[in-house]
Amino acid sequence: MYLGSWLSRLSRSLSRPIGKTTQPVWGSLSRSLTLGAQRIPEFSSFVARTNTCGELRSSHLGQEVTLCGWIQYRRQNTFLVLRDCHGLVQIIIPQDESAASVKKILCEAPLESVVKVTGTVISRPPGQKNPKMPTGEIEIRVKTAELLNACKKLPFEIKDFMKKTEALRLQYRYLDLRSFQMQYNLRLRSQIVMRMREYLCNLHGFVDVETPTLFKRTPGGAKEFLVPSREPGKFYSLPQSPQQFKQLLMVGGLDRYFQVARCYRDEGSRPDRQPEFTQIDIEMSFVDQTGIQRLIEGLLQYSWPDDKDPVEIPFPSMTFAEALATYGTDKPDIRFGMKKYVRKQDIAFIRDFATHHFSQEVLPVFLNAKRNWSSPFAKFIMEEERLELSRLMEIQEEDMVLLTAGKHEKACSLLGKLRLQCADLLEMRGVVLRDPALFSFLWVVDFPLFVTKEESPTELESAHHPFTAPNPSDIHLLYTEPEKVRGQHYDLVLNGSEIGGGSIRIHDAQLQRYILATLLKEDVKLLSHLLQALDYGAPPHGGIALGLDRLLCLVTGAPSIRDVIAFPKSYRGHDLMSSAPDSVPPEELKPYHIQVTWPADSEEENAAATPSKNLSS
Amino acid sequence: MYLGSWLSRLSRSLSRPIGKTTQPVWGSLSRSLTLGAQRIPEFSSFVARTNTCGELRSSHLGQEVTLCGWIQYRRQNTFLVLRDCHGLVQIIIPQDESAASVKKILCEAPLESVVKVTGTVISRPPGQKNPKMPTGEIEIRVKTAELLNACKKLPFEIKDFMKKTEALRLQYRYLDLRSFQMQYNLRLRSQIVMRMREYLCNLHGFVDVETPTLFKRTPGGAKEFLVPSREPGKFYSLPQSPQQFKQLLMVGGLDRYFQVARCYRDEGSRPDRQPEFTQIDIEMSFVDQTGIQRLIEGLLQYSWPDDKDPVEIPFPSMTFAEALATYGTDKPDIRFGMKKYVRKQDIAFIRDFATHHFSQEVLPVFLNAKRNWSSPFAKFIMEEERLELSRLMEIQEEDMVLLTAGKHEKACSLLGKLRLQCADLLEMRGVVLRDPALFSFLWVVDFPLFVTKEESPTELESAHHPFTAPNPSDIHLLYTEPEKVRGQHYDLVLNGSEIGGGSIRIHDAQLQRYILATLLKEDVKLLSHLLQALDYGAPPHGGIALGLDRLLCLVTGAPSIRDVIAFPKSYRGHDLMSSAPDSVPPEELKPYHIQVTWPADSEEENAAATPSKNLSS
Repeated sequence: MYLGSWLSRLSRSLSRPIGKTTQPVWGSLSRSLTLGAQRIPEFSSFVARTNTCGELRSSHLGQEVTLCGWIQYRRQNTFLVLRDCHGLVQIIIPQDESAASVKKILCEAPLESVVKVTGTVISRPPGQKNPKMPTGEIEIRVKTAELLNACKKLPFEIKDFMKKTEALRLQYRYLDLRSFQMQYNLRLRSQIVMRMREYLCNLHGFVDVETPTLFKRTPGGAKEFLVPSREPGKFYSLPQSPQQFKQLLMVGGLDRYFQVARCYRDEGSRPDRQPEFTQIDIEMSFVDQTGIQRLIEGLLQYSWPDDKDPVEIPFPSMTFAEALATYGTDKPDIRFGMKKYVRKQDIAFIRDFATHHFSQEVLPVFLNAKRNWSSPFAKFIMEEERLELSRLMEIQEEDMVLLTAGKHEKACSLLGKLRLQCADLLEMRGVVLRDPALFSFLWVVDFPLFVTKEESPTELESAHHPFTAPNPSDIHLLYTEPEKVRGQHYDLVLNGSEIGGGSIRIHDAQLQRYILATLLKEDVKLLSHLLQALDYGAPPHGGIALGLDRLLCLVTGAPSIRDVIAFPKSYRGHDLMSSAPDSVPPEELKPYHIQVTWPADSEEENAAATPSKNLSS
Repeated sequence: MYLGSWLSRLSRSLSRPIGKTTQPVWGSLSRSLTLGAQRIPEFSSFVARTNTCGELRSSHLGQEVTLCGWIQYRRQNTFLVLRDCHGLVQIIIPQDESAASVKKILCEAPLESVVKVTGTVISRPPGQKNPKMPTGEIEIRVKTAELLNACKKLPFEIKDFMKKTEALRLQYRYLDLRSFQMQYNLRLRSQIVMRMREYLCNLHGFVDVETPTLFKRTPGGAKEFLVPSREPGKFYSLPQSPQQFKQLLMVGGLDRYFQVARCYRDEGSRPDRQPEFTQIDIEMSFVDQTGIQRLIEGLLQYSWPDDKDPVEIPFPSMTFAEALATYGTDKPDIRFGMKKYVRKQDIAFIRDFATHHFSQEVLPVFLNAKRNWSSPFAKFIMEEERLELSRLMEIQEEDMVLLTAGKHEKACSLLGKLRLQCADLLEMRGVVLRDPALFSFLWVVDFPLFVTKEESPTELESAHHPFTAPNPSDIHLLYTEPEKVRGQHYDLVLNGSEIGGGSIRIHDAQLQRYILATLLKEDVKLLSHLLQALDYGAPPHGGIALGLDRLLCLVTGAPSIRDVIAFPKSYRGHDLMSSAPDSVPPEELKPYHIQVTWPADSEEENAAATPSKNLSS
């Protein structure tokens, strides 16, 4: 079923140039960001300028304009390029004696200084128009200029920015934000979120409710940051999601809730994770799995950027079992299916990878040519089995097939990783399998409700969270074989990344108590308020959360989620600009009744450390 | 100048009934919340119902509808009233034998149980229509009914809610949220914020940027919550506002920033304050004070609820000096000016109040009748002085004037408080001075940039914050008499409450360093990143923050900001529903390298305490 659609997508992707839409053109920012049918915002209301630099066109010829911006570039003291948030415009520096003061200001100000200029929009002389620049037909004949702020020597050039190390970019984030790419990413983020709000609030009657972030620890909430209170020994927790609150809002009759919610997760150092992140958090009463899925499809279609291909809905759906068996993962990248063009020397690499990363020794490799198997493994297999396998896998001439043996989940997972490895190999050879301009959404459904704990295989834990409702047809299994129960959980996958997940929740207090106390052995006291709430007329309800940072990262084609967040933390959780987290004088800890427990070997070292970086850098 | 406008407002307010628009009528919720010219949202998309209970009218006659809701009321097993988020509708319980199962479900389910019913919209019999109920012309003849969740015995009745103690309401917040008033407040809040976003983002090109809440402590940030990190002795702080980030965004060329920002302030126990709160946070480049004021006036006018009188703009403006001299406060309630109808026995009360609250002994009281002064103080004053005072204060017949002596600020402040006391006295007598349906905005400007520290009068501290730019005409005073410098700060006052404040910021690094280090004696190392940023081409910029909770509190006429927040903390900072903050097992503190410092007398007590409330409540 999916093979056909993969192949057609593959052929589409092969016929496209790679990276088509991921590089925004500086200067076209404001055009690409104008809202579909809506009016264009007034970008110059309430301020000293009459226009933005980037918006000027031939239609403005003859107008006197006041512009404010940064000096991007200057040539031979005759013209300079002024930049603001909407693009670039060329300014002619006056050369006549009467304008000596204007010339002095514009020629002496260092690059990246901020100036205000007033002048007339004129046409560029014939032959000097620049068709690559949105304002390339015009230039500004300046009358007055004012230096608003001079720039000191920069740690790096703005225009050459992307070549700097990420640590340097994060340390001078306020300069990094001036780059074309960061401006584009943050403005697109704002716009997509605004459209999501319009869809949810204005079109579908959702209520935007802010829920607290100073909350109580949740059972098993080992990844929750703590916030000491002024009461000795009492702590707030920063929750990983508004899960309990959104369910309580449904009990409270709010009916349709959403929030662009700040969430917190303390995972220590993890690449491409952030200690605080944002999710589009949604909950509805009287809804089923299909209702949530149609809502989200509509949401993404409505908020999708105009400069990308429209989102096609409904999204395909696949069970967890099918995803694991077919793709070896619960988040398949369905942009591509088959593997081709792998060379002999790659095979050793692939086998090494499997041994190294999965400690799984055997990786028999089959090459099929003219229906014969070329493999060291071929001689161990009967002719009948070979034909049956060829039929099951629909092997074509020139195909390569990778086989392995082992426990189902582990073997599938290995092959899934190898599939991505092969895609990497092929793309290194120039075969475009994963077109960045193609966005393939997929629902993955029918997850198991519980998994066995790795460290203690006789105990169960929730596959997602303990509030997920079981599949109604599996409820009887809860009391006999709970590990076989499927949950009403759904994940949304985009190009091989999980961008959202949700579930229909348990609204029956007795069932929730049984699952928490009997099956999961959790401390129900921590959740007594939620259990009580379910007793007082809780409506059936369900919801979902979309990871906004990850979604934006995929939409913009950014290499990291740090590129779609204004002030991200480093992978160690540091703010490299302000050096947070920072030392705190002991007297500021006193009101919170805590003290630092210094590790034995670092005590002296820390006592000597300065609380923050030196000013004279 | 303001006296005339007060008087005209006073007469307006006297001619109006008190509390005109603050009590929403249940059932009219969805009507009053429909957006001006915009389409009405689809409240029943994606879910099991065809319609909401509250939307049904005569125009739906004959339609088969499916409704989901709570059983609000039942009479004689013949009909019941079903409630959902949009209102109430009457359901006829079928009495014929063939519908026995439907009757059983509807008659046996306890009140507040959740049911789904399908039936036909029919006209109520003549004489039984209820004009007070928006759905009062119709009722539902039910065919099928399903019990979705039965309700256990409630701790209080939903419909009679407002008489319960606030502690009980907060403990069962999910039930409290079902009340008409809380539904109205939260939906209005969502709608006002959505309109603000439309105005800022869609009409004026603002970019919604999320800034971190895990940050670094700020100089003098004694009210900042701390968040221990996994590095020994290193802490994040939860900032009181995104002040530094919004300025850095301007340095980064974002041009127009806004955020509905979660802020944190640890003030211990304070009535009507919340440890986390929300502000509409705004910053613009190349703007002046007037630009910000016009922006905010437009914002409030655009987002103002349709069921209130439109906001008139521009708002009046008053200097801090004038506000203090005239109203004895920096946040005057300009809905009323004069005081009348005070009885003799009130005067003792007023004098007691002054002595008690201000330790200010003398409060001479003058009563004027036919130009003669009736006061124990009259004999100490010369005829000439008396006439001059009468002229200055424009004393009319029957006026009462309160005089006091002392330092300007203290004396004014006392009289300002007495003015509000007199208003209370008069309103107890039924004179409406402060019409809750009247919204009087006022800008207060020209605040001093610094104030002397109370505990050390030779030292200065910022009147608002150290980033506020001085008034350009006062800059020379910075180096001679800094206490006389006025700041480019503006407060927005509504009906005597400060609902916002902002300033034009310092964009010159040298000036900022001088103010921080030389005048304020702050540790500039904590702000080195900001000072550095100002050196690299920071544009002139300014902004404002509106307190959303306070604004909504005034708009809805709620007695407390807790009534416009879904899950507020108690005045001691507790979540009474979940009992946060809570104890944390010592092993969960270990990764953060902290331990609790128990106060000597509470150690045993706390060691014995259970970590959370008992489940069996």
